[in-house]
Parts: sequence; structure tokens; C-alpha cells
Amino acid sequence: MRNSSRSQVDPFIVMDVMEAARRAEAKGRSIIHMEVGQPGTPAPAGARGALAQAMNHDAMGYTVALGLPALRARIADLYKDWYGLALDPERVVVTSGSSAAFILAFTALFDAGDRVGIGRPGYPSYRQILKALNLVPVEVETAAENRLQPTPADFLGQNLAGVLVASPANPSGTMLCRTELEGLITAAHDQNIAFISDEIYHGIEYEAKAVTALEISDQTYVINSFSKYFSMTGWRIGWMVVPEDHVRVIERLAQNMFICPPHASQIAALAAMDCDVELEANMAVYRENRQLMLEGLPKAGFDRIAPPDGAFYVYADVSHLTNDSRAFAAEILDRAGVAVTPGLDFDPERGHGTLRFSYARSTADIAEGLRRLKTFMDKRSEA
Amino acid sequence: MRNSSRSQVDPFIVMDVMEAARRAEAKGRSIIHMEVGQPGTPAPAGARGALAQAMNHDAMGYTVALGLPALRARIADLYKDWYGLALDPERVVVTSGSSAAFILAFTALFDAGDRVGIGRPGYPSYRQILKALNLVPVEVETAAENRLQPTPADFLGQNLAGVLVASPANPSGTMLCRTELEGLITAAHDQNIAFISDEIYHGIEYEAKAVTALEISDQTYVINSFSKYFSMTGWRIGWMVVPEDHVRVIERLAQNMFICPPHASQIAALAAMDCDVELEANMAVYRENRQLMLEGLPKAGFDRIAPPDGAFYVYADVSHLTNDSRAFAAEILDRAGVAVTPGLDFDPERGHGTLRFSYARSTADIAEGLRRLKTFMDKRSEA
Repeated sequence: MRNSSRSQVDPFIVMDVMEAARRAEAKGRSIIHMEVGQPGTPAPAGARGALAQAMNHDAMGYTVALGLPALRARIADLYKDWYGLALDPERVVVTSGSSAAFILAFTALFDAGDRVGIGRPGYPSYRQILKALNLVPVEVETAAENRLQPTPADFLGQNLAGVLVASPANPSGTMLCRTELEGLITAAHDQNIAFISDEIYHGIEYEAKAVTALEISDQTYVINSFSKYFSMTGWRIGWMVVPEDHVRVIERLAQNMFICPPHASQIAALAAMDCDVELEANMAVYRENRQLMLEGLPKAGFDRIAPPDGAFYVYADVSHLTNDSRAFAAEILDRAGVAVTPGLDFDPERGHGTLRFSYARSTADIAEGLRRLKTFMDKRSEA
Repeated sequence: MRNSSRSQVDPFIVMDVMEAARRAEAKGRSIIHMEVGQPGTPAPAGARGALAQAMNHDAMGYTVALGLPALRARIADLYKDWYGLALDPERVVVTSGSSAAFILAFTALFDAGDRVGIGRPGYPSYRQILKALNLVPVEVETAAENRLQPTPADFLGQNLAGVLVASPANPSGTMLCRTELEGLITAAHDQNIAFISDEIYHGIEYEAKAVTALEISDQTYVINSFSKYFSMTGWRIGWMVVPEDHVRVIERLAQNMFICPPHASQIAALAAMDCDVELEANMAVYRENRQLMLEGLPKAGFDRIAPPDGAFYVYADVSHLTNDSRAFAAEILDRAGVAVTPGLDFDPERGHGTLRFSYARSTADIAEGLRRLKTFMDKRSEA
């Protein structure tokens, strides 16, 4: 049986790292995981407790396609709490993780052959989902002086139907300030380009609060998730805020393509939103880890880094150390016992000279990982 | 902001019935739900218990994209238990419900513009998902003498890239016997047409066991779900079995489009597979309900029905009673207090003269619903 051409998406190179790390651990080696893009913490205790309770008295069948009304209302409240915005819960669409939100957004907005602009480096699944939906990812190479975020000029004259930006971004952790985001949205509106804002790392911020696209315009798609700040990756639960006149289209697509987001995850997510103490304790760990990374990575020789505004990644330029980040990551795993992600997944071209370090795990792990990296790099420079 | 043309999918007409039923109940009326396509029972107690346990000691982050290895192995075992087949667990792909399986299958197999044959009447989301993925649903009108199942002749000369069949089918509940399924698969293979078998109602069978396409060929996509027999609709967990040389393509698509199926649902599903006693108790209810329906519907005047081989639906020809099934369903809801589904979702043409009755709820509900239907129809024929 033949496969379609649109299904020929690229493999994740990080998977090779993860598999090699797994094999090393199976042989009894200690590996520090700086390759993973998820918190080491479980869903908040309050979330798990709420689900355990609900399972005793609720059949938990399908919910309506847009999600439990109480959860949509609570998410709308979050926009008041976090940004001071009044948001109509009717515009909130609960989704099976941001993954489903991307599929819904791309399907609702674009037809086969449409061109969608994304920044490079960026989350690799953007371009793969676009391709799988017969869309054309148009990757613009972002500049270090723009902290690896796109500018309005990057998207000019590209004949785009849509633009997708992320702030805080993966892998760089950099954010778009209000002025920058406003510039991008205004340019998109002027050219009749649909604007999608990936805000899944909101809540994990350090020096300044992240700005939501909804502070600037109601005519955008905003995608968020319970995976990161709320520490619920495996639950596959997220949300999207869409323009009022797009709700009905999204509802019909969601009814057919997903039926509903997982009911259990919706119940857990609703309760997670009231678990501030535990979530802020997670944030304290990220803050401490970030500080350790900003101090420890340069000492180990990874000195071409920018402080991340948000998320839990440091994206390092290692082009002075290697022109083969994949081999370098394999060497680091083998000799230092630290798993890191080569930049190639995020940027097939410049990624030969970059690495992404995640600091989502425990502070003890991060400290040990930095110690190992320094020892390894010290030896390497002596050699 | 504009919407894509592919996002213009049809509304579900049953949603109007469900909303009208909800309004009636909010006013204090008693409504018997024969419109719903899901069990009234929760996930088995063993499944819920396993999840409650796991939440205490497992962070439940992302799983690998194809699903927990233990769950894939257990699903492979099911093919031994149910069909006497030895199945390599590597071919099993755990999905976020059959919904995600359809998206993955269609994306892996077909490119924009490809034509995919489906029988009519059929599950309405088939054609909507196909359209959303820029594919062309080619609906063939199935014949009553074929028990509303397609035949090889139906798909000839249609220039198809794929064919999708369901057995037991929704809304008819009819099955394809081994010879019929073999005929369809052979015809598809001969014409180089990809064959997809929707087997989500397997396990809910009455007179004979359902036949899986895997008994006939390894070169098919088989889609199944924990929603129906395992009573886990809201958990959004299902699976797919694909040809060995398609696993890697599906894995890459799944990594990008879904990351993984819900971890909590995977844990619950694994435990559900050992809950035979509870699941067979559910089956005993369906068996009794089916018997009540087959006796009670004709007595109420719905005598143009065929005994369903599986699933929990009776699809009735009511063309002698109405040429507007939507209005008729509204009348039944209003005057009998029974919610039923007009056939239009399943068959936009002949569905004007059909209704689907679901018997997935409790036996007490079914008995009461049949009593109400008879009273209503007796009065109606007097009028």
C-alpha cells in the first residue's frame, strides 16, 4: 500500500538522543536529562484529587465538542487574572492539547496550498503539521539581533495566508514585547494575513510578563495549553481563543475531527487552575534552575547564550565548537552523561551549530548536569 | 478573518435534537435518550482504580507517540483472544480515540484531491474529516438487500484511492460476513485501493462474531476504539493496526500531530482490558435491550427494521410515516418525550425517511421509551 506524499514528514532528531539515553540508562549509566521538553513534575495534586473524586460519581462520557462550560468559563477568567482582559467564554475552545488546536486552526483558516509563515528556529511540529495538512510552511530565518523572533519585514512579499509566532518561543525562550507583537499583528491585518499566536509557555516567565495577542486584537487565534505552566503534558489538554465569528466553524470541525477533548483531562485541568501554591513552587524551581544555567553554562564554555525570557530552555550557539551538533550531542551524552538536543530539529540549516538545553527537571539534576558539562568541556579543551 | 473552504463542514442535525432534549429537561420534563451514540456506563471500575493508583506515583508525562508498550502488547493479545490471530505489537498504534486514527490514516494514505469511497448511510464524520483534509468523499448508496453495506461493485470505476467500511456499521448495526469482507478487500487490492476497516463496534455483537479485516489481509488499516465495548467514550482512546511498513510513517505523523495519546487514558484502557466481568454485564444489558427493541418497535409501528448484528442501534425506515425525519424526530421528542436521531446525518438523501434508535442506555430506560413510543404512535394513527 502506498503512502501519501504529505505523510513524508521529517524524523525528530531528538528521538535518537532520547533512544540513546534510554539505552545508556538500561546499561546502568546515570544520565541527566536536559533534552526533554516537559516538566518533571506531575499534574498538581488538586487536579489529580478532583479527577479521583469525579471518577466515583460521573460516567465521564463525551463532553460537548468545545469543552465543559465550567472549564471554558474558568479559562476566560484566567485572562482577567493574568492580563486584565475581559474575555467572553464563548470564544474559548478546549482542545486535546495544543496539538489539536494547531490542527483545528490550520484547517479552519487555510486551504490546500496556502502558505503560512513561521520563524526559524522554531517548534519543529509547526512545519510538519502544516505539510501534513497540505499547507506550505514558509520559514523565515530570524536574526540573533532580534533575539530569534520574526519581524514584520520577514513576512513581507511572501504571499502568505497566515503567520504563526510563539512567545515565549521554543527553543530560544525569547519573548515578543508588546510593541513587537503589535507590529506583527498590525502588519498581518494590513495584508489580510491570519495571525496565530502560540502562547503555550505563558505563565513560565522570568523578568517580565508575557503579552497575549488578545491584548492587541480580537482578530487572532491564540493557542495555549495546560502542558507547561500547569504541568500536564501527558494529559493532552489545551485551549484556543478564536474570533467570535469563527467559533461555530471551529465547533463543527471539532465535533467531527475530535468529538471532544478527554473528559478526565478537562476535569483535572479545571482543578489545576486553582493550584497556585504548587504551580508557583514549580516556578521557583525553574527560576533557580535558570539562574544556575546562566551561571554554569558559560563556565562550561557554552557562553554564546541569551537569557531566556520564559519557558525552560537555553538555546546555545555552539558553532565555534562544532559544525555537527548531532555528533556533538552524541559525544556529550556518551562522555558527559548529559542528554541535550541538537538544534537541527528547530533549524535544519543553522541548527548544525546550536544546542538546546532544557532545565525543566529538578534543581539537583540541573546542578549535576552543569557539573558534568564543565568537567567534560574542560577535558575536551585540553585535548 | 476569512475561513478556509475546507472548514465548511455540515452541522450535525442530531445536535439540534440533543439541544431540544436538554431544554425540555431543563424545564423539568422527563426525556428518554435514544439519540445518544454512547454507553451510559462509566469506564470499568478496574480501569478507574488503576488510574487512581497510577496518579499517586507516576508523573504521567508524554508517552512515546505510538503508545505505552504494555498497552500495545495487550491490544495485540486481544487479537489472539477475539480472533485467534497472532499480531505483532509493533503494528499497533494507540491513538486519541478513533478520531485521531482516522486523521492519521487519511493523512498517511491520501494526498489532497484523492477520492475515498464510503457507504451511505454511514458515520457522518467520515465525510467531514475527509473534506477537512482536502480529500473527496465518494458516497455510494448502499442497498437494503445488502443490509446497507457496500459491495465490490459499488466501488468500481470510481477512481478511488481508498475505501472505508464499517462492520458493525453505524447507524444500521449490520455486519459484513467473512466472504463479503474478503470480496471487498480483494477488490480493493486488485485495484490498488487502500482499504480501511472501522471496527469500533467489535465486541458488541449478538448472533455471530464480527470478522476483522486482519483475518483476511495484513495490507489494511484497521481502526478500533475503547469507546464502545470498553465503555470509555470520554477518554478519547483507541487504536489502529497498520501494515508493518507503514508503522514508521504513522509514528512520525503521530509525533508531530498528536505527540501522544492521553497518558491517563492509556493507563485506564490497559486495565479495562482485564475487566471482563463488568464488560460482559454491559453486554447482557445490550442484549436484553436489543430484544426489547426488536419486539417493541414493530408493536409501536416502526416495523421496517432489520435486526442489528452488532453495535447498539436500530435503523428504521419510516418513509411510510414521514418524508421529513427531522420534523418527525422533533414531534417524537415533543409529544412522546423520546429523543431519537433523524437519519439525515447518516444519509443526506434517503435520511429524510429514516430514524436511528439507540439502545445503549439502561433497560429500564429502553422499556419506558418503547412504552412512550407506542402510546404516541397509537394516538398518531388514530388522529
